[in-house]
Parts: sequence; structure tokens; C-alpha cells
Amino acid sequence: MPYVNIKVTRERSGPVTPEQKAELIKGVTDLLKNVLNKNPATTVVVIDEVEMDNWGIGGLPAEEYRAFVASQKK
Amino acid sequence: MPYVNIKVTRERSGPVTPEQKAELIKGVTDLLKNVLNKNPATTVVVIDEVEMDNWGIGGLPAEEYRAFVASQKK
Amino acid sequence: MPYVNIKVTRERSGPVTPEQKAELIKGVTDLLKNVLNKNPATTVVVIDEVEMDNWGIGGLPAEEYRAFVASQKK
Amino acid sequence: MPYVNIKVTRERSGPVTPEQKAELIKGVTDLLKNVLNKNPATTVVVIDEVEMDNWGIGGLPAEEYRAFVASQKK
Amino acid sequence: MPYVNIKVTRERSGPVTPEQKAELIKGVTDLLKNVLNKNPATTVVVIDEVEMDNWGIGGLPAEEYRAFVASQKK
Amino acid sequence: MPYVNIKVTRERSGPVTPEQKAELIKGVTDLLKNVLNKNPATTVVVIDEVEMDNWGIGGLPAEEYRAFVASQKK
Repeated sequence: MPYVNIKVTRERSGPVTPEQKAELIKGVTDLLKNVLNKNPATTVVVIDEVEMDNWGIGGLPAEEYRAFVASQKK
Repeated sequence: MPYVNIKVTRERSGPVTPEQKAELIKGVTDLLKNVLNKNPATTVVVIDEVEMDNWGIGGLPAEEYRAFVASQKK
Repeated sequence: MPYVNIKVTRERSGPVTPEQKAELIKGVTDLLKNVLNKNPATTVVVIDEVEMDNWGIGGLPAEEYRAFVASQKK
Repeated sequence: MPYVNIKVTRERSGPVTPEQKAELIKGVTDLLKNVLNKNPATTVVVIDEVEMDNWGIGGLPAEEYRAFVASQKK
Repeated sequence: MPYVNIKVTRERSGPVTPEQKAELIKGVTDLLKNVLNKNPATTVVVIDEVEMDNWGIGGLPAEEYRAFVASQKK
Repeated sequence: MPYVNIKVTRERSGPVTPEQKAELIKGVTDLLKNVLNKNPATTVVVIDEVEMDNWGIGGLPAEEYRAFVASQKK
């Protein structure tokens, strides 16, 4: 009876599609069945799409961080 | 000083109403007072309404799961 | 198919007992059935007992905060 | 490689601005570096703005609670 | 840069092994790369093992729930 | 009335000390007061120390990831 929460950024190129969400739900439920023999019937998955402004890494909002990393690679 | 997070699906028949949210907040705060003698003044409750597509159970998105369960009962 | 997470401090007077945990689980599951007609069979509740040092309020660890509040009342 | 989740109410006076979010992300990342020497490059921060109706304290929705506290002070 | 939290019960037959945890971490990181093209380098996974008493489903602690379901099948 | 959850790895060199936890609690409470004018009296902070085996990044458990990164720098 696992509970899984997946948080991803909502990309400006478009939201996660219902098909992709279904793949995530199936994939992680299968993983828990295969690795720990957990019952899919009581495996709950919740996906959160988080606005880009609300995600930080490296001390910066996500998009600034990506621009910074890209600039370092030049 | 408990913290409670309640996640429910946002049903297509309509969102959770402010009155229902107030009932959940009061109900769970009372429960923690009655069972553990927790102080309501520092009991925090956060409710998340989760889009149907973002909720999975049984390896399927919630609505597909419900349709599957309903089909099994016939 | 709600998911509820209840976080409470682990008091030095003793941990939450299994009986109290069962009361919390039953109470919040009933609440969601009564208020939102949610199915108990797919209502998941997870209780976290948090060490006193790991809980802060008012900018202070929980026990210091309680001592401060008690001192103010004198 | 810390993970920090900050939940605040979305005030009716207006949402948290991108600049304020950037300040929160920088501030908490710096704090973890200063106190625990955590690497900013792998410090993740997620901010959730929560609708006022979805936040409870003192057994009441947040705005009712504030009105109650204000009335007590008169 | 996803964040994934996996909560599972700590079974009395034994805790999740480090090898199983590594499989969960690799599996869910690969899933996010395959489905959403997320960068593994910034994909964070946190696993929580939850004591059986602290997990509820169907309004009952997990072990009582399992015993109940088993009794129904007879 | 914010809620902040800080998750950090429990390092093998030793746990986070009560003094460090108090610094984190004060630091993040001050940050929310300074940036968003949030009331410290209703700001709740919960710190989770996560076992090294339970934390993954880059598709690996945290310690393997660190060893991998260190090996790349040589």
C-alpha cells in the first residue's frame, strides 16, 4: 500500500499530457510491484506540476539556474 | 501543534465547497484535540485538491480505475 | 481515494499509542466519508511522529516555544 | 542535497511575486549552506501557494481565524 | 529536476534492503527520463519507511486491514 | 501562517545537532517574516533527517552518487 508523490516543473513548452501522467502512474506502480511485491490495488500516486517560478535549485529559480548552467558550458 | 495535509481528488461534478473545507478543518482539529489533547490554536490543516489526471491508483489514472472497478462488478 | 498525512510531535511523556493511532485513522477516514462521501477502502492515512527538536514554531524549537509562552502567562 | 518545501497562503491582496520567490529560494539555500554546509547545487526548493480556503488554523479557515483573532484584541 | 517521495510500510518480515532502495531510486529516475526527458542529475528521490502502526487504510491500521481483507476472502 | 519542511540527509559523520536545528528554524522563520511579512507565531517548521540509503540523486543512492562525482573530478 505505497504512496508516491512525483513533483515536476510545468514546462513553458506545455504541460505534462494525460498520456504521460498515465505512463508515470503505471511505471511507478509496476516498479513497486517488481521490487517490493507491493499490491497495485492499494498503490496511490499523486503528481504535482509546479510552476517554474516556484521551483528553485542552486539558489536560483529553475529557469535562471538553467540559463546559468547553459552559460557555463560555452 | 500538529500539521495535517489532506489530499482529495477534484471531482468533475464540482470542487470541494468552502463549507466542506471548513468542516474538514474543524473535524480534524477536533479529532486531534480529543485523541491527543493537541492545542487547536497551533493545529495547521492544509487541503490540496488534486486534478483527476494527477491521481493514480491500481496503476491507472483515477477515472480509468473507477471505470475498471465498475466494469468488474457487473 | 484521499490521502491524509498527520504530523505530531513525539512528546517526552511518551509516544502516541497504537490505540490512539487507530483512533486518528478511524476518525479522519470517517470525517472524509461524512463530509465528502469518500470511500474508506481507498482512504490512506500516514502518521508521522516528529522529534521535539525537529519541530519549530514562533522561530523556536517546540519546547523552547512552550517555555516562552508559559513564561509570558505568568 | 536538501529538499525544502515552503507552503504559504495566497493572499487576496495579491500572489507572491517572482522576486519574492527568488528571495525565498536564495535565502533558504544560503541558510542550509551556512548552517550545515550543504551544497547549493543540489539544494531543491519548492514553493506552494495555497488558496486561503484550503488553509486552516485554530479549527477555522485562515480568514475566519484572522477575523476571530482580530475581534479578540478589541 | 523532479522530486519523488516514496512511502512504504516497514514490514515486520524485515526492512527494505539497500539493494531494493537502489532499485527504486534507479527505476523512478529512469522512468522520469524516459517519459518526460527529465535530467537524472537533478532528480531527487526520498524513500520513507513507515511503521505499520502509522499507516492506515479502510479506516484501520494496516495490519488490521490486511487481516480483515483476508478474513473476507474465506 | 507558513509551513516549511526541510529534509536533509543524516550524515555518517553525525546527526544535525539541536543547535543547528534551532538555527534552521530561526533562519527560515526570519526569512518568511522579512520577505513576505509572515507572522512568526504561526510559522511552523518541520525538519526531517533522512537516512543516506533513503536519499537518491542522479539515479543512485546519495553516497554512491558522491563517490561517482568525486571520481569524475580526478
